[in-house]
Amino acid sequence: MSRFNISPLKIPKRLLMGPGPSMVADSILEKMGAAPVGHLDPYFLSLMEEIKRMLREVFQTSNEFTFPVSGTGSAGMEFCLVNLIEPQDKVLVGINGLFGRRIADLALKLGANVQTLEVPWGESIEADQLKKALDELQPKVVALVHAETSTGIRNPIEELSPLICQSGALFILDTVTSLGGIPVFIDRWGVDATFSATQKCIGAPPGLSPVSFSPRAMEIVSKRKTKIPSWYFDCLLLHGYWGMDRIYHHTAPTNNNYGLHEALRLILEEGLENRWQRHHNAYCRLKKGLSELGLEFFTPDNRRLSQLNAVKVPEGKDEALLRQKLLDQYGIEIGPGLGPLKGKIWRIGLMAEGAREECVDKLLVSLEEVLKS
Amino acid sequence: MSRFNISPLKIPKRLLMGPGPSMVADSILEKMGAAPVGHLDPYFLSLMEEIKRMLREVFQTSNEFTFPVSGTGSAGMEFCLVNLIEPQDKVLVGINGLFGRRIADLALKLGANVQTLEVPWGESIEADQLKKALDELQPKVVALVHAETSTGIRNPIEELSPLICQSGALFILDTVTSLGGIPVFIDRWGVDATFSATQKCIGAPPGLSPVSFSPRAMEIVSKRKTKIPSWYFDCLLLHGYWGMDRIYHHTAPTNNNYGLHEALRLILEEGLENRWQRHHNAYCRLKKGLSELGLEFFTPDNRRLSQLNAVKVPEGKDEALLRQKLLDQYGIEIGPGLGPLKGKIWRIGLMAEGAREECVDKLLVSLEEVLKS
Repeated sequence: MSRFNISPLKIPKRLLMGPGPSMVADSILEKMGAAPVGHLDPYFLSLMEEIKRMLREVFQTSNEFTFPVSGTGSAGMEFCLVNLIEPQDKVLVGINGLFGRRIADLALKLGANVQTLEVPWGESIEADQLKKALDELQPKVVALVHAETSTGIRNPIEELSPLICQSGALFILDTVTSLGGIPVFIDRWGVDATFSATQKCIGAPPGLSPVSFSPRAMEIVSKRKTKIPSWYFDCLLLHGYWGMDRIYHHTAPTNNNYGLHEALRLILEEGLENRWQRHHNAYCRLKKGLSELGLEFFTPDNRRLSQLNAVKVPEGKDEALLRQKLLDQYGIEIGPGLGPLKGKIWRIGLMAEGAREECVDKLLVSLEEVLKS
Repeated sequence: MSRFNISPLKIPKRLLMGPGPSMVADSILEKMGAAPVGHLDPYFLSLMEEIKRMLREVFQTSNEFTFPVSGTGSAGMEFCLVNLIEPQDKVLVGINGLFGRRIADLALKLGANVQTLEVPWGESIEADQLKKALDELQPKVVALVHAETSTGIRNPIEELSPLICQSGALFILDTVTSLGGIPVFIDRWGVDATFSATQKCIGAPPGLSPVSFSPRAMEIVSKRKTKIPSWYFDCLLLHGYWGMDRIYHHTAPTNNNYGLHEALRLILEEGLENRWQRHHNAYCRLKKGLSELGLEFFTPDNRRLSQLNAVKVPEGKDEALLRQKLLDQYGIEIGPGLGPLKGKIWRIGLMAEGAREECVDKLLVSLEEVLKS
């Protein structure tokens, strides 16, 4: 087998200030590296219960069916849509970036009658726009992205959600990049289904997608006319596994759940409001520093995500080259623009352990150096 | 937040001798606990390439499209079926346990015309039975389970595969519990699509599902008449991510890939044949010891899995109680029977790091004690 000649990994240290994965606390990494117990071990079952309880608090929901899907954020998206959407269902998707587009793409794959409310990348979806679309289209389902990772825009869910509730439509909300970083209120906003991810503001490594279904969502699934075209994401089967029945479904990723447990514990120890404030403080520090460097935001102030900052690349600079220098010379990762924003913006993440003064300062100093070069 | 009152995990030490997850080597756990780099970091991309190369060797295939799906074994199953099966396709599924049944269930959800070749749990599917079914049904797709985890039976793929190749049907093979423990020859057997899992004989924690598609499988996907009803498992999108194009699809579970890299490296360092022999040797030691304890196998000698042993519970013994004693008093996990075998068998796994003399001996000594009690 010597022809393989593959050495043990020597994993470089990075300061992760991009769109995720984010920096992970040492105590979470320690749990990630613990020896697994069996996935039906009584110890693991009690750990599952604690994860569910803590997730409900972080989501600000009383939904019983709240648990981590065994896959990444996109798996959570698929979990929500594959259960709740049937062929020909009229689905309205708000699109102002890559992740709204992705929801629409998946809904199309599932045979839905997809209608879109599109605004340019870098703008937010506003109440008057949504009201008009709801009135015109009368959708059965509305899907929105809370924090659009591709553009750094926050859609004002606190203003949009009452309109959806009034319309009677089922409400699916992407909270991948918002959960744990900015206020998320699943029950107060009347969200029926939401999906998030562990590797953004939750601060654990990627691999799990926390989700939550309201009782109304569960009822809609139970009344489906067609089969759920998935076994892995079938919420009725998963409810048997993550619910009180403990019916074997799949083997939960033990170590990722260890890590998530610790991440959620740290969030609740810090307190949700303190954590949101910490993310905001890091943003303020970044904003000041960027301004001193003469850099501008791509996003408007009132709809800007504190945890994911889209910053204009200075005229005439090769953004990929500067990003590579940051990585190679300083070990710092920031993200590029995607799609129409490729080459035009950087995406600077201040998430979880990265949303701290010392990380922001290190980034600013290094960015200043590479901009000079 | 004090009302939560959730303590940091104190994870108990277990000797995992059940149907998986299996014992994990320390160097793999160390990698699982390393700080993540970005999933599009050049370092991670080179690691992806090494994983693909090593997986091809372990699967004994030259299939270019060989990579780990970001989910557990059941996710790999869904990956294979959702891409390769269209509504109304005639699919023949061999069923002699829970996992064959699961394949059939998923194929039904996908709208296939599912035909089954069923033999009783504890028996293997034999060449004459498969030949008859193929002649009668002329299926487009045949799906078989190599190592049936629910019963400890090995279906003799070396005898079955030539029949499938002759029939011209597409061949999907479940190698979840076989890969890394007993001989698996994807190319020699003419397998078009296979899925495995990290937490059995590969010896890493659960969370990834190694898969491989033949060029013929990829061609069949490219000629589909209907949309793939999945985004997360869409092999064309995943090929863009895991192939040379590196198009962002989802965020790969960094740490699970670290662990898989190390697990595959250890397998190739040991050598596939040495590893298969080690699993066989552990089985021989277990067989001798069980015989001395007066315990009998549920499975026939010639179709028995060395890595997953179905053992009859002695008449009049409460299997759940004894299993619980093993766990509580000795920290050893073995598995119960499932479905029709509930209460009738134990399932003793000898997988990866558990397939060692010292583990077998510890189990035998402890089993003797609890049987006396």
